[in-house]
Amino acid sequence: MDIRPRLREQRIETPSWAYGNSGTRFKVFAQPGVPRDPYEKLADAAQVHRFTGIAPSVALHIPWDKVDDYADLRRHADGLGLSIGAINANVFQDDDYKLGSVANPDPRVRRKALDHLLECVDIMDATGSDTLKLWFADGTNYPGQDDIRARQDRLAEALESVYARLGDGQRFLLEYKLFEPAFYTTDVPDWGTAYAHCLRLGPKAQVVVDTGHHAPGTNIEFIVAFLLREGKLGGFDFNSRFYADDDLMVGAADPFQLFRIMYEVAEEPGIAFMLDQCHNLEPKIPGQIRSVMNVQEATAKALLVDKNALKSAQEAGDVLAANAVLMDAYNTDVRPLLADLRREAGLDPDPMAAYAKSGYFQEISATRVGGAQAGWGA
Amino acid sequence: MDIRPRLREQRIETPSWAYGNSGTRFKVFAQPGVPRDPYEKLADAAQVHRFTGIAPSVALHIPWDKVDDYADLRRHADGLGLSIGAINANVFQDDDYKLGSVANPDPRVRRKALDHLLECVDIMDATGSDTLKLWFADGTNYPGQDDIRARQDRLAEALESVYARLGDGQRFLLEYKLFEPAFYTTDVPDWGTAYAHCLRLGPKAQVVVDTGHHAPGTNIEFIVAFLLREGKLGGFDFNSRFYADDDLMVGAADPFQLFRIMYEVAEEPGIAFMLDQCHNLEPKIPGQIRSVMNVQEATAKALLVDKNALKSAQEAGDVLAANAVLMDAYNTDVRPLLADLRREAGLDPDPMAAYAKSGYFQEISATRVGGAQAGWGA
Amino acid sequence: MDIRPRLREQRIETPSWAYGNSGTRFKVFAQPGVPRDPYEKLADAAQVHRFTGIAPSVALHIPWDKVDDYADLRRHADGLGLSIGAINANVFQDDDYKLGSVANPDPRVRRKALDHLLECVDIMDATGSDTLKLWFADGTNYPGQDDIRARQDRLAEALESVYARLGDGQRFLLEYKLFEPAFYTTDVPDWGTAYAHCLRLGPKAQVVVDTGHHAPGTNIEFIVAFLLREGKLGGFDFNSRFYADDDLMVGAADPFQLFRIMYEVAEEPGIAFMLDQCHNLEPKIPGQIRSVMNVQEATAKALLVDKNALKSAQEAGDVLAANAVLMDAYNTDVRPLLADLRREAGLDPDPMAAYAKSGYFQEISATRVGGAQAGWGA
Amino acid sequence: MDIRPRLREQRIETPSWAYGNSGTRFKVFAQPGVPRDPYEKLADAAQVHRFTGIAPSVALHIPWDKVDDYADLRRHADGLGLSIGAINANVFQDDDYKLGSVANPDPRVRRKALDHLLECVDIMDATGSDTLKLWFADGTNYPGQDDIRARQDRLAEALESVYARLGDGQRFLLEYKLFEPAFYTTDVPDWGTAYAHCLRLGPKAQVVVDTGHHAPGTNIEFIVAFLLREGKLGGFDFNSRFYADDDLMVGAADPFQLFRIMYEVAEEPGIAFMLDQCHNLEPKIPGQIRSVMNVQEATAKALLVDKNALKSAQEAGDVLAANAVLMDAYNTDVRPLLADLRREAGLDPDPMAAYAKSGYFQEISATRVGGAQAGWGA
Repeated sequence: MDIRPRLREQRIETPSWAYGNSGTRFKVFAQPGVPRDPYEKLADAAQVHRFTGIAPSVALHIPWDKVDDYADLRRHADGLGLSIGAINANVFQDDDYKLGSVANPDPRVRRKALDHLLECVDIMDATGSDTLKLWFADGTNYPGQDDIRARQDRLAEALESVYARLGDGQRFLLEYKLFEPAFYTTDVPDWGTAYAHCLRLGPKAQVVVDTGHHAPGTNIEFIVAFLLREGKLGGFDFNSRFYADDDLMVGAADPFQLFRIMYEVAEEPGIAFMLDQCHNLEPKIPGQIRSVMNVQEATAKALLVDKNALKSAQEAGDVLAANAVLMDAYNTDVRPLLADLRREAGLDPDPMAAYAKSGYFQEISATRVGGAQAGWGA
Repeated sequence: MDIRPRLREQRIETPSWAYGNSGTRFKVFAQPGVPRDPYEKLADAAQVHRFTGIAPSVALHIPWDKVDDYADLRRHADGLGLSIGAINANVFQDDDYKLGSVANPDPRVRRKALDHLLECVDIMDATGSDTLKLWFADGTNYPGQDDIRARQDRLAEALESVYARLGDGQRFLLEYKLFEPAFYTTDVPDWGTAYAHCLRLGPKAQVVVDTGHHAPGTNIEFIVAFLLREGKLGGFDFNSRFYADDDLMVGAADPFQLFRIMYEVAEEPGIAFMLDQCHNLEPKIPGQIRSVMNVQEATAKALLVDKNALKSAQEAGDVLAANAVLMDAYNTDVRPLLADLRREAGLDPDPMAAYAKSGYFQEISATRVGGAQAGWGA
Repeated sequence: MDIRPRLREQRIETPSWAYGNSGTRFKVFAQPGVPRDPYEKLADAAQVHRFTGIAPSVALHIPWDKVDDYADLRRHADGLGLSIGAINANVFQDDDYKLGSVANPDPRVRRKALDHLLECVDIMDATGSDTLKLWFADGTNYPGQDDIRARQDRLAEALESVYARLGDGQRFLLEYKLFEPAFYTTDVPDWGTAYAHCLRLGPKAQVVVDTGHHAPGTNIEFIVAFLLREGKLGGFDFNSRFYADDDLMVGAADPFQLFRIMYEVAEEPGIAFMLDQCHNLEPKIPGQIRSVMNVQEATAKALLVDKNALKSAQEAGDVLAANAVLMDAYNTDVRPLLADLRREAGLDPDPMAAYAKSGYFQEISATRVGGAQAGWGA
Repeated sequence: MDIRPRLREQRIETPSWAYGNSGTRFKVFAQPGVPRDPYEKLADAAQVHRFTGIAPSVALHIPWDKVDDYADLRRHADGLGLSIGAINANVFQDDDYKLGSVANPDPRVRRKALDHLLECVDIMDATGSDTLKLWFADGTNYPGQDDIRARQDRLAEALESVYARLGDGQRFLLEYKLFEPAFYTTDVPDWGTAYAHCLRLGPKAQVVVDTGHHAPGTNIEFIVAFLLREGKLGGFDFNSRFYADDDLMVGAADPFQLFRIMYEVAEEPGIAFMLDQCHNLEPKIPGQIRSVMNVQEATAKALLVDKNALKSAQEAGDVLAANAVLMDAYNTDVRPLLADLRREAGLDPDPMAAYAKSGYFQEISATRVGGAQAGWGA
């Protein structure tokens, strides 16, 4: 089978916040050349697309990417050859959200949070985005702090309101996360919770799998396969982790896991492949380029799996042969193939080297002086 | 609030296999006096009820408890003051099940497994049991070994057939488990998977929460609260664990967790409280007595929570006060109260001491000589 | 046995940073009345001691608690009835430390970090502190980022220099932590690493156990017992966690674990009992009071264990009896006993209520206006 | 750098028990052709060496491999081109060991266990083995069951006696394991415990790293690097796992982790590379062949790392470049190179296919009829 056509059409979305500063609760290490506003973030994202050829959309995060004129931002993106991807809501960085947003015991705070979510749909309308990404930091830190069931009722009510506001061709993706920042309960801690809420709401509500948000030992590709079977997988927030939500470059911690995930999903239509990770130590733009390449390499390997041979071995109950079919694809070095594809598309076969030679980093380091660097708080 | 009425009506089911030998893959340590057949297991279970007063039913495991005449076994139970509880199906101990039972790639094996499940419903009819417990050891050990989605299709098909066979007043409980004996994928690995299957089938299908079957860091009481809100919690398989599915006495590893679980469920009707644990090192009957007492103590503490005070503190967002209300109940020593309740019911206030003094252990050790001791394999 | 004498002499140290603002990487929620400088932090710590009677020392964190005149700060502490406890070094919040401090590949950064550590010993001299606490955020985020062994060499070299600088009656405690902020390797990830370094250096180097810094499934009381047997346990950083380094109030997540730890250590001399936790959602001073009480309650229960009965059951191999001896102590409600002890010492039997009634919080909320609230960054 | 010389001299030891039946506590699935005695196990091991060329030694497990005449067994091995590798002691499968072996509270049991360990040294003398492997299933299931420190004292005493018995050129390797079969405490749960005991004893005592015996999130290559720096790494028990001690084929669960481990150790002399895994579902001999190949492939990739380029990037603090050097080696397809090496050594380039074609499996399936198949219990 020729895997090139599928690889040619793959698209991976980068997140605006990957270009800003980030870090841990202990320290954010600032980097030179970091964007000061959403326009500069888009300019950086355009570099990732320029060298990889498969990253033409950018996710926004509100309010980090709040601007006065979203139509203008959209035009700016167009001019860079980009489109606006998912709108990510943020209901966790206001003092009001200390005990939660849409699940807060205080109805005033819930209303405020809901208004923000609805505003995000307005921004979708203005930017042409078709996807709203909902992650809630809601939860509790101590047993007894709040009522688990009551919080679900409040959450369900907010989701209904948001769902009702969605227009044709719009959807929301509900994200789950085991823990952090809430440490005892999290209101959407696992795929089952996200799934149950989305199922009740209808086809415009789907689950998004963030690869860093699971308990140790969780089999992520199982979740992916299960949600696909149920028609409820909306997309991925890619990143990687060794321990918790470490936000490392996708494929950096366990490239075999990424391959197994891509094997389940590589040929499925309509799944959003998004990066959701930060570059705390490494430079931002090459960090994104490498991440896009990692997803692409895993996809190529996944597509190389000989499905007929695999099926035969599986049906015969030949454990070693079936495993070997999968491993043959994984052990293949797909970098030459991908270099060819890039050449064919008029790109440099080595995106990392090409970016390094481009002088872009030197340019932004020299010119982006003064102003406040973008980060999680701004 | 007087918590005694609720405590008086609490019932906890013990499993027939708790009275037989068990162990790890490394070694089964035999114990004196272990039953040789289901009749002797019931006799032992009757001792647990005799001293605790709240354990009047016994779960069976087929084929470990296979007998020629289930009506006779039922009469034997009646004579001991017991009833037959859940019927536990076993589709994992035949060479045919090496690659799975209802999710096996081989249709012949699937048919055989399904026939066993249907036979278990026959046994429910014969014994008066209203609950079928389904745990599947199905899964794979290696990436590629089988197709994750295809296995779900096969599983769903079998569940439909079993569901269709259930009579009025009968239900099945679908159990999930993170891993073991399958090590790479498990076909029902988490509550979300069990929930999704049960939801599709209807009200006679519910989820059972085995407290030892979760990934590290999983908040079990959240799952309990969520399933209750969805009307899909059927019951518990109680045990405790430090690491994996350790099958220790419930409440032994984390009594505070047990209390938090009981807080969510203590006043809910229709939930089956079952023990599912083995006593590898400790003697069987007192191991069960202690376990029943542990659940009872956790229940008493849970019922002691001042719900009005808790609700006020939660609504006020007073984190420390809300936590303190819960902890006040947990820190209360409920043993005197439970001793009173036992005296009131004509029981010895100290079940462990009373059993030790009863001479039952000496009796079974002396008389149960010869024959094959019951265990997981028989 | 009368456990009161041991309880009367117990001392628990609170950390200056518990009184300042803290949070997660997502958000720090500010609280009213938070101290603006180390003097105000000490004033708050004095309240914890005032109501509990067992918290007369305060750990400092440099540079968060940097002052011009440490002798003056010491006099201020004296005046409040407090002494200065452990000095906590901080070599993770400067841009230079992005790739590590004493294990950094750059010798200039290593020198800078070492100078800070030596300065902390100067501060010990000036404040009368006898304990230096060393926690290194050092590690790497990506495979290959640095050489694991070379980093150990650099770490060992720095530890030797610090050790050589310690005066008579001074020691350092080396802290280990599984992960965070480093996500791939951590240079002191576990007790074994800390132990090996301390063993090589000599008796002034000991291991400190932070209860929140372990992998899932780790048996902390085993580590405590093992280090005690080796004479290498220096103290505890108490807090609790459900998942990672959650910094919740000690005893809040797993009070039974805290009891088991205290059972191993309650009667050992020379062990520093320190809190190391932050109060992200709950108010700071009562958060510390509750934490001190939780350690005290766990200690009282641990002291109640009938050691003779336990030893007899253990030697007889009576698993259930031995466990029951331990659980009898744990299940005892020790709050009345501790209330008595407080009355005897002239304290209010209910420290939480007494603090609430004292009006201190209202006072600091009203008067600490303006200035920069203390936090991790300042 | 030419990596072939190092690959030519690599040796991987297979375990006798890999050729017998194995399973989980739920079920052991028997396979056709399984050996009935140690002689037949050696014959099977010879097949692994025949097709891989790098597996010329076999570990024994006593008493599973007990024979009347070890000199005869050794001659049998010689005749097959094999040598006897590590002797593995077993002090966990006798009813006496229910509460432990060398750490048992009963001195009679401790003596019995020690006698077995000393007998294993006799067997080393008789078979020419230079390595004793010590894994203790010792531990407790319940808090309070036994005294943690007292058990360490007993363990230390036994280890001293064994150490004293070792002859010149003999050593023992102490294995650690997080949990199982003990569920609450394990007496040698982590590398730190094994290290501390070995350090005290001297150079003939070293730590063995079983890759499946760690808590979730543990960085195994860190442990490897640390033990190498301390001169205390004796060898590996290779296998792989997703969750617990799953005993899957090495490299099957996380090939990138295996590569990272091999990177630390590939050029170190004197390290024993042993497989310790069972084949519950897959056929035994090809399972071992595949495992040997997986270690070999990881070694080849590890040797391909450009150490100069890596060191330069590390010293420059170039996170992405350093990671890329490592990943370049990992992403290389080394299978052609290894096929060449096999041809050069007169072997079939495809060991799996060659074994399948050899007819050996058909032969043993037909001829090994009757008798008791070897397994963990025999």
